[in-house]
Amino acid sequence: MNRLEFIVEELVTANRILANEGIVDSFGHVSARHPDKPQHYLLSRARAPERIERDDIVEFGLDGSAIDERGRAPYLERFIHGAIYEQRPDVHAVVHNHSPSVIPFGVTGKKLKPLLHMCASIGHEVPIWDSRDKFGDTTLLVSDMAMGRDLAGLLGARPATLMRGHGATVVGRSVRHAVFIAVYLEVGAKLQMQAMAMGDIKFLSPGEVDKITARVNDYTLNRAWENWARRAGREMQA
Amino acid sequence: MNRLEFIVEELVTANRILANEGIVDSFGHVSARHPDKPQHYLLSRARAPERIERDDIVEFGLDGSAIDERGRAPYLERFIHGAIYEQRPDVHAVVHNHSPSVIPFGVTGKKLKPLLHMCASIGHEVPIWDSRDKFGDTTLLVSDMAMGRDLAGLLGARPATLMRGHGATVVGRSVRHAVFIAVYLEVGAKLQMQAMAMGDIKFLSPGEVDKITARVNDYTLNRAWENWARRAGREMQA
Amino acid sequence: MNRLEFIVEELVTANRILANEGIVDSFGHVSARHPDKPQHYLLSRARAPERIERDDIVEFGLDGSAIDERGRAPYLERFIHGAIYEQRPDVHAVVHNHSPSVIPFGVTGKKLKPLLHMCASIGHEVPIWDSRDKFGDTTLLVSDMAMGRDLAGLLGARPATLMRGHGATVVGRSVRHAVFIAVYLEVGAKLQMQAMAMGDIKFLSPGEVDKITARVNDYTLNRAWENWARRAGREMQA
Amino acid sequence: MNRLEFIVEELVTANRILANEGIVDSFGHVSARHPDKPQHYLLSRARAPERIERDDIVEFGLDGSAIDERGRAPYLERFIHGAIYEQRPDVHAVVHNHSPSVIPFGVTGKKLKPLLHMCASIGHEVPIWDSRDKFGDTTLLVSDMAMGRDLAGLLGARPATLMRGHGATVVGRSVRHAVFIAVYLEVGAKLQMQAMAMGDIKFLSPGEVDKITARVNDYTLNRAWENWARRAGREMQA
Repeated sequence: MNRLEFIVEELVTANRILANEGIVDSFGHVSARHPDKPQHYLLSRARAPERIERDDIVEFGLDGSAIDERGRAPYLERFIHGAIYEQRPDVHAVVHNHSPSVIPFGVTGKKLKPLLHMCASIGHEVPIWDSRDKFGDTTLLVSDMAMGRDLAGLLGARPATLMRGHGATVVGRSVRHAVFIAVYLEVGAKLQMQAMAMGDIKFLSPGEVDKITARVNDYTLNRAWENWARRAGREMQA
Repeated sequence: MNRLEFIVEELVTANRILANEGIVDSFGHVSARHPDKPQHYLLSRARAPERIERDDIVEFGLDGSAIDERGRAPYLERFIHGAIYEQRPDVHAVVHNHSPSVIPFGVTGKKLKPLLHMCASIGHEVPIWDSRDKFGDTTLLVSDMAMGRDLAGLLGARPATLMRGHGATVVGRSVRHAVFIAVYLEVGAKLQMQAMAMGDIKFLSPGEVDKITARVNDYTLNRAWENWARRAGREMQA
Repeated sequence: MNRLEFIVEELVTANRILANEGIVDSFGHVSARHPDKPQHYLLSRARAPERIERDDIVEFGLDGSAIDERGRAPYLERFIHGAIYEQRPDVHAVVHNHSPSVIPFGVTGKKLKPLLHMCASIGHEVPIWDSRDKFGDTTLLVSDMAMGRDLAGLLGARPATLMRGHGATVVGRSVRHAVFIAVYLEVGAKLQMQAMAMGDIKFLSPGEVDKITARVNDYTLNRAWENWARRAGREMQA
Repeated sequence: MNRLEFIVEELVTANRILANEGIVDSFGHVSARHPDKPQHYLLSRARAPERIERDDIVEFGLDGSAIDERGRAPYLERFIHGAIYEQRPDVHAVVHNHSPSVIPFGVTGKKLKPLLHMCASIGHEVPIWDSRDKFGDTTLLVSDMAMGRDLAGLLGARPATLMRGHGATVVGRSVRHAVFIAVYLEVGAKLQMQAMAMGDIKFLSPGEVDKITARVNDYTLNRAWENWARRAGREMQA
């Protein structure tokens, strides 16, 4: 199996995992930077993540133009992916999702921060992008490169950003890394909502966040990936 | 397959989806306007949605009288459906349900409004119908055309209304459209309950609601429908 | 099939339903009055409800002595059942359970009342029995007839009572009726917790509770029973 | 089957149960003291609990050194287990987990106490270990014997301790006992969060906790174990 085939299989598994773990519903998507052409990325045609097969994966240029569309209609919001790959050479995978517990943070402006060691990878604090600030009344969908770049600008060097009334976007150095962060962003958001109702929260200290983040290696990611993949009816690739 | 057969299959799938997604339990129902006779509608005999088969679908006149009952006992609350079809020529499907998160809004009088882009189709604000206002102490069931018409009157041109101590009624231009709104009414209600506990909410602006609603096309509905149908063990019809 | 065989099958199905719907976990039990000997009742040997088979059902006298034990160890808390059958000739089935949402009401003393039409059968208000009031520090288990009769005394003519730090006990005129009330007691408790966090609650009026309760007939119970039984891998008996 | 083989099978079942009941996700672990060599313990190689097979179980000395590693990489946090077995001769099984409802207690400092009879085994009050108190900014992982012994010191003679920003550690006199307590620690934490939002809580009295704890025998543990094992696709060993 060559590198491209490997990544395509990873994306299929990633979609199934995100659906099975409740991080995406019928909407949301995950992409990977093309392993041989860093100015291209791979993303499914517009389809619910739980249903995605190998043949659904399309190659795109960073501007969102399909290289080999063959009638496979793209996601309108593919610009999220291209704009981030354009700005962040370190990023090799992007997840855009509407997982349930992140939404209340986006609409109330409460700061989402890591309180559990597993959640340190979400970053010291997750910013909130509001499409209305610069673009006014829209469908909230990131439907062109201008919106994508504005979102990527707020993301900056961070691993994740919320989107007001919409969801979140998470990035990683690999597909497994981005999926890991997306899952624990949801976990952390749910826990923080519960803890906020109980009293003042002792969040992870900045030093703890840095130490944990530095230690999240392939070993950690693979333990979760093997488990999530099987639960979603897929096998972990070697 | 003719248009009637198509709609009957859609209704079976809709019932299974609504049950599988937790929008109905053993109660609740979904109907479609008859594709050839706009003064008739199609609705299952009284049975739990998760169990409904093709042969359970009965044809009714708008007044709730069965055209071809053959021993299939009707839902007592079929008057909800007829009264809405009578008043709303644009409506081709109606869902009546008791999904869990809408109930607390109905009994506390808190206004349910869209805060997530996926929920814009529930309308700018969801009104609350209270059977007691006009009909006093009843079983709360919409058991005749007078109650149905009163409910339809409050619904007006809107896509959805809550019913105090009872549930919700949602309408759409197609079966897929009504199911989509019913699912995201539940999603939005759950999110709003959580966000209310956290602080002031930035709801979608009126302009955002209108722009998103205008963009919810077959393309959007089918992405969700394909996924929900498969999850419920059914296939999407072409 | 004779009446006894019918009831034994009903109890197996009831146990599976209560487990599958989350009303019991590995503990909790459901009994039926013997159809031919009103001074006897039928209850499983001590086993998790999800696992119970026909041969687990044992016949007991009202005082909790097994008629035909054959090595099948009884539930310690069988006295709940006998004490209620002794006092309430109208009762033909009893469910004792620890369903999650009823517990917070028992320990905070907040009154659980019906706010959804489906929950009217729980009664106008559910009392809370505290074993400590009369029996002091115990294991909280209803482990003899004195405790059972004290519980039955608080229950009085009602359909349900909570038990502080322990759970609930629900009665019905048939197995299906008691299971129906136990399920909607849990549903109502969860909804009331959510609604209490949002504001003042408009509960069902006394007149509404009475009207709905009078209308909960076999027709209603069977719609739910057919569905729950199938979900639990069982068929509804005719 | 000899005693060692029995315990290895118990551990496989325990891992599957903890995963299936939502007490561990892809992380967390359960160990048993070696039945023949009390200075050794048995613990899986580093793998998600839901995936663990018989051949994953490795034997360790109390200091965390593997006796027969054969390329099976150990959990970094195995020191939790050894430090507790070293200090507590009465303990024969240890569960370390991140079950969702215990986390908010650890980060808010609210005292988790039993309010349901099934939860008495968690002890009169669950202390909170904060790695930062003595070890400053770390990854929060218990990665050597010094940290393990500090945790064991706070645990003292108790059945459970929380760990700030991290999870919980639970001990028992057998694998079944430790799993039982870990499950009901999660159950109790969720209930207490809900009850705290409703009002003042009547917790179990100290006398009730002692009486119930004294009564949790094999009979009780096996009823739950048989059920949980089957739900996780395993059989209870005789």
